[in-house]
Formats: sequence, structure tokens, C-alpha cells
Amino acid sequence: MKNILLLGAGRSASSLINYLLRYAPIEGWHLTVADVQPAHLVPILVAHTEYARAVPFDIQNDALLEELVTSADVVISMLPAAFHPVVARACLRHGRHLATASYATDEIRALDAEAQAAGVTLLMECGLDPGLDHMSAMQAIGAIRARGGQLVSFKSYCGGLLTPESEGNNPWRYKFTWNPRNVVLAGQSTAKYLENGRPHFIPYQQLFRRLEVLDVPGYGQFEGYANRDSLSYRAPYGLDTIPTILRGTLRRPGYCAAWNALVRLGLTDDTVHLGNTADWTWPQLIAAYLPPAAAVGGNLATQLADYLGLNPDGEEMRLLSWLGLFKHTAVGLPNATPAQLLEHLLTEKWRLQPGDHDLIVMQHLFEFMLHGKRYRRTSSLVVPGDDATHTAMAKTVGLPLGMVVRRLARGLVPQHGVVIPTHADLYEPVLAELEADYGIQFQEEESELSN
Amino acid sequence: MKNILLLGAGRSASSLINYLLRYAPIEGWHLTVADVQPAHLVPILVAHTEYARAVPFDIQNDALLEELVTSADVVISMLPAAFHPVVARACLRHGRHLATASYATDEIRALDAEAQAAGVTLLMECGLDPGLDHMSAMQAIGAIRARGGQLVSFKSYCGGLLTPESEGNNPWRYKFTWNPRNVVLAGQSTAKYLENGRPHFIPYQQLFRRLEVLDVPGYGQFEGYANRDSLSYRAPYGLDTIPTILRGTLRRPGYCAAWNALVRLGLTDDTVHLGNTADWTWPQLIAAYLPPAAAVGGNLATQLADYLGLNPDGEEMRLLSWLGLFKHTAVGLPNATPAQLLEHLLTEKWRLQPGDHDLIVMQHLFEFMLHGKRYRRTSSLVVPGDDATHTAMAKTVGLPLGMVVRRLARGLVPQHGVVIPTHADLYEPVLAELEADYGIQFQEEESELSN
Repeated sequence: MKNILLLGAGRSASSLINYLLRYAPIEGWHLTVADVQPAHLVPILVAHTEYARAVPFDIQNDALLEELVTSADVVISMLPAAFHPVVARACLRHGRHLATASYATDEIRALDAEAQAAGVTLLMECGLDPGLDHMSAMQAIGAIRARGGQLVSFKSYCGGLLTPESEGNNPWRYKFTWNPRNVVLAGQSTAKYLENGRPHFIPYQQLFRRLEVLDVPGYGQFEGYANRDSLSYRAPYGLDTIPTILRGTLRRPGYCAAWNALVRLGLTDDTVHLGNTADWTWPQLIAAYLPPAAAVGGNLATQLADYLGLNPDGEEMRLLSWLGLFKHTAVGLPNATPAQLLEHLLTEKWRLQPGDHDLIVMQHLFEFMLHGKRYRRTSSLVVPGDDATHTAMAKTVGLPLGMVVRRLARGLVPQHGVVIPTHADLYEPVLAELEADYGIQFQEEESELSN
Repeated sequence: MKNILLLGAGRSASSLINYLLRYAPIEGWHLTVADVQPAHLVPILVAHTEYARAVPFDIQNDALLEELVTSADVVISMLPAAFHPVVARACLRHGRHLATASYATDEIRALDAEAQAAGVTLLMECGLDPGLDHMSAMQAIGAIRARGGQLVSFKSYCGGLLTPESEGNNPWRYKFTWNPRNVVLAGQSTAKYLENGRPHFIPYQQLFRRLEVLDVPGYGQFEGYANRDSLSYRAPYGLDTIPTILRGTLRRPGYCAAWNALVRLGLTDDTVHLGNTADWTWPQLIAAYLPPAAAVGGNLATQLADYLGLNPDGEEMRLLSWLGLFKHTAVGLPNATPAQLLEHLLTEKWRLQPGDHDLIVMQHLFEFMLHGKRYRRTSSLVVPGDDATHTAMAKTVGLPLGMVVRRLARGLVPQHGVVIPTHADLYEPVLAELEADYGIQFQEEESELSN
């Protein structure tokens, strides 16, 4: 029997837990799910008590962590990423393997030599993004290379969005399916990418106007903005000399232009506390961001459009107005940053409703030379959520993670140290299982490009 | 005999040292100037060896700090502001008074009760800004109140600039007379001020387009942009209910529009390291900030103007071009932030030349009600530098500091604890001495405003 320990069982762990429960009797596992508030796990585990239990857990309790890790063969951490080094060090002390869906940070990478020496696998970046992005990109890159193709361009976009039916009348075509704070603060550093062999930089104040339009078969158009440091993907993908590489985030068309208006107005700033604004209304807050002359009399929306140089009847203003920026409701938080106030508002406006289905969209755009011709290959993945619990996010984060854990538990991961899933022996079976058992499958398109 | 200890004797201490040397024989002081590199002090002190000495000093050397502070009656710190808490705590341990030209930070304010109990004066904010701004504003406010006037608006601007002759053919009409890094990073948080009883916020991306134009008698026009938190000046000035208060920084007209182009392009970002850019030229760096399509062929300056929506033949482009952004010179630093590269460039372009004279400009704009009428009173100060050593900055920072130290040494400062110079018994004699002995004097204008 193998003991599998899952640390952290928040909402996004639902599909992972289902996967682990499915395979526990088959693989001969005993599953321990450790969470701050384990009560919500009782109904989930009730039919599986022979091989699964929930235990209360607090990351501050060192003795408990030691006890749980000692009893485990494989540890999975779905805790907030900041706690992963603590868990990883406990795994190292007891020679246990670890799997997570989070980035291999410098702090984690610093444990590589020690983990290698101990024969321990710290398997990071095994969720969606990072995770499935690596696996699918490496598979496609491998296929292009196997034909003799030479990659000259790789762009990869991902977004957590909504099925068309769930977009309803929300003109942003977006709701929160992931950490709202990260969405509000997205992009607040200069993005770097490479185009035709030359580095390019996009500062925050230009990010949401520097867009690429993408077409996803069956789902229409999306717009993508660049992520932080695309250059860092060259080495792990073996693309050190590729002339063009860019990673980005997907939104529906129109989102970025309206978001850019919020950025320019100042509402995404998280560095200043505005004082006693709890009783303020949104129009009062907006007026405080306009020059005093503009704020006296007149229509606030028109003044805002004028200040930002927007068409008062245009799309950006329609999206801003839909948020309720011009409605006399209280901002509702004392001494908050503008970013906190905006997040507070959006948490209401962009809340997933019962019956809503989220949608994960990922698209890789490759360009490669083959026999003197230039080809474009597009790999597109679209995954709708099953329901409010088994969201597309929970599935695409949890299932790859569950699958690598199954391989870890079987002793099928030969790599030790800090590992990410760029190895064919790791990603091939995971991608095959996702397709065969869950219908999670990339659509491939390929065409020759005219010169 | 009183022992006066000056910690830190960088360039900006020149006028302070002159002042202390002038008064040492008169007041019966012995002066100790402690500096990391005391060699440059030898020629300055050589004619004053009976009552002045230079000693090597290192703030990391606790024993030396204890020894020096123990032997002093009054301690002056011109060290970087980060070291002031260390010095202040040493002063507290030995019951010595301290004077500085730096802000009373929260860390310094936390020592207030202890200093009061010990009968120690920690006299902060006694230079130019903060310092002379407090003194002159409080004097003017006091004069308005003495006539029965009720203040309704207070705006105060200050800038370290150049005499018109020293501006030469530099279209920015600006050179570094103060910490270059602070100039490059200026304003990178949301500014707060109050106008007609309502708070207003200006985020960084709007700061350099939200300008007020000021006229300084004999010196023409300046433009002012808002400083970080003007609201924090209400309490110390006794202006808790004033409807309008704003503090700002002065530049010559045109500076802010061109600077805003640098901000929008992304060149003031200090959060991202650009990698191996040491061999890059400035045009390569600029091209990396433009969209790839724009960067292919064509005239870079025209492409930049197009990208930022600027007139290619306009003032902003003239100022940007003068910096050498389109000249094929190397950026010169490896793995720097854009802000560091820009600072590196500006340090060359905006270097004070032999024969240049800096210019301190400060202007307070008061509006007050008196007998049912509304008046505007403008207090303007213009101080040109004497030479490259006794700059206007060194004089206006050092002389007020020297003067409060003279009063401290004479026992004429009755306040204990953390004190700033908003007390009439402190600022009146300092302002009188600055005028009588140094010709440093505000010009007052007053007129009735039509309703």
C-alpha cells in the first residue's frame, strides 16, 4: 500500500480529489487529505473511508507536518505557493516525493542538488499553466522536430474564461475563475519577449494596448496580452536560439481596451491607501481621479471619457458603465488601495453564478521551417467546466497533477531533484490519459505560410 | 565650550560647514566633522584647527559612534536618511540633541516619548524641503491669521533648477542638483491632494500631464506637478479643515510633457532587469519598446512619435532627441533596469558644468477670506548658487540647519522630543538671520480675487 498525502483542499482541488479517489482502490493507495477546514471534505470522502480520510491541518504546526509527511509515500501540495518550500524541505528530510501545480521558484530550485542526492523528486509545474502548457508544447515541438522542422516562432496563450452561454449579458465576457487579486494586479511589471531575434519590452502602461488577436476553432476570437518574462521559457523548452517567443494571457475582444482605461485612470494601483473612503460612492471615487475642473457639474461618464480620450458612446465606456462605476453605491472598504476597491467591486460583478460554466482556452502558435518552406501549426485546447465544483480550472489543474502523482507512486518517474514536466516519458502518458479518459485534447491545424 | 559633531560631510554639507566654522570661535564651539573620507575636509579646516577637526567615520563602527556622540553637546546628521534612527538612538542613550534636514519618519517619531522623557530634542526637517518650506509657510500663515484672515487654499511648490544663464541650450532647462535616482523615480505612487474639500488622486501615469503653471517674479514661468501625500501637511501646519492643500515640484515649462513621454514609453520602470543590454545602443533600446512592426525600417524618431501620439516636430520630441535617444551610443550598463539606464544617460546629459549655477525656487500660494473678500497671497523664494561648491541647494539646506543648531547649542529650543520647525520661536529667528546675513528672502505679493 502507498500512502498519498494531499495538503490543501480548496475549491480548485475538487477534480484532483476525485481522481485520487478513483485510483486509490485500483492502485492500493491510502489517501490523507489535510486541510485547514476539513469539514467540507466529509461528504466527499464518506463513500471512501476504507482508503481515504480527512485531517485538520495547519502549516504552522511543524510537528503535524512532520508526522503527516513521514507517513506518506507521495506528498501533493495545493497550499498557497508561499508554503511550498516548507513542505519541500519536510519531504527532503524524510525522503518523500512531492508534486505541485506551482512554479519552481528560485527558493524551490535551490533544493535541487539536495533532492538529487537524496533520490527525491520535487515535481513542480504539473497543473494547467504551468503544467499542461509545458506538456502540450513539448509534445508539439517534439513532433515538429521529428519531421525535421526547425522552429522559428513559438507563441503560447492561455486564459480562464467562460463558455459562451455563461457570458450572458456581461460585456466583459469575463468572470473570476481564479484569484481575483492576481487578475486585478496582472501585468504590473514590464513584459519581455523575443520577436525576430530581438528582445521587446512592454511596460504596464502599454500592455493592454499591445494585443494579438487569436482565433480558436468553434469559439471565435480572443485577444492576448504578453506575460511577464517569455524569455525564461527558452531554456526549459530547449529553444535557446528561437528567434520569436512570447507567452500571453487570453481575454475576449474588448476586455483589454476597457481594462486599460481602468489602468490609466489609476484604479489598479496597489501602492497607495486612499484613507477613509468606506462611505464614498463609486462616482465620488471616479471624480477624485478626474481633474477638479472636470469634476464640477456635468455628466461624470462624459467627463471620464473626455479625460481618457475615449468615445463617450464607445465600447470601453459601455464596459466601464456596466461595472457600476457611475452608480451611487458605496465603495465599501476603509483605507483601501484603489486596486482593493476595484477587486471588491469586481468580486460582485464578476462572480460565477450557479449554472455558469468556466472555460479554459489554451493556444500554441508555432512557426517552423521544413524543406525550405515556412509552416504555421496551431494547437488549440478548449475545456469547459462540468459544473460549479468541477470547473474547467479544477479539472485542468487537478487532473494532470493527479496523473503525475500516479506515476510517482508507481515509481515511473526516474528524474530526481527539481523536475518540471518537459520530459516525454512524463508528459506523453499524461496527455494520452487526458485525451482517452477525459476528452481533454488539443486540436491541431497546420498550413504553409506564403513568404 | 560646546562640542558640535557633524556626521557626514558630503557635497551638500559645504555651506553648513562654513556656517559652523564662522560661528565656532564666536560661540565657543569645538567642531568635529566625521566623514567616511575626511581627506577632502583638510583644506577646508586648515585655517580653523584650534576649534575644528576632521575624523574618519563609519556608521557601522558602533564604538566610534558612541565615543563621538558622548563627547558632543549637539549632533548634526547629514548622513543618508536611513542611518538617522541609529544616530538618534545613540543621542538618546547619551542625552544629546540631534538636528537633521531629513523627514521625521515613523521610525524617528517612535522615539518621541523617550526623547521627551530624557529632555532630548530630535530636531528634524530643518533643511530646505523639508525645512525652509515649513518655516516660511508657517510665518505666512501666522501673518494671515494675525490679520483675521481664514485660509481656504494652500499650495506650495519647490524645485532645484538652474539660473537662466546656466540653462544654456539644454531644452529641458534642467540638470541634476540632487540625487539623480530620486529624480528618475519621482512620483511613482499615486499623489493625493485636497481641492475644495474633496480629496483628489493622481496616479503616476497621469502625474506629468496634471500640471499647474506658476509665475515667479523675475524668473518667468514654471510648471508644478503634485507630490506624494499633500494631506499629511494639514496636521503639522494646523490646517486640519483647509479645503484645498497641495504640495508639488517645480520644473521649467515643457519638462513634464517630455518626461511623460519617457514614462509612457516605459523608461522610468525600475522593477525589471533587461538582461544583457550593455552593448545595446540607445536606438536599439528604444526600438525594443516599440511594437515589432514599427521597429522594422523607417525613422525611429518618427516611429516613436507615432507610437506615443506625439507631433514628430514638436517640443516633446525635441527634448527626447536632445537626450541622444536616437544617437548610436551604447546604453553602457549590463542587466540594468530601464530607470537605471535612463539615469546613466541623464547623469551625462544633465551634469552641472564648471561655471553653472543652480537655482532653488519655492513658491507658496495662499488664498484666504478676510472681511468677506477673497485674497491671494504669493510668497516666492529664488536662491541662486554661489558656485559649484556653495550651490543654492547646499546653502538652503545647510544654513537653516546651522542656524537651528546654533539655537540648540545656546539652549534656546525649549521643545523636547521629535520636533519640526513649525514653532514661531524657532523659525522667526532663522528666517530673520537668512534674510539679514544671506539675503535669502521671500517676495510677497497679495491681491484681491474677484469672485
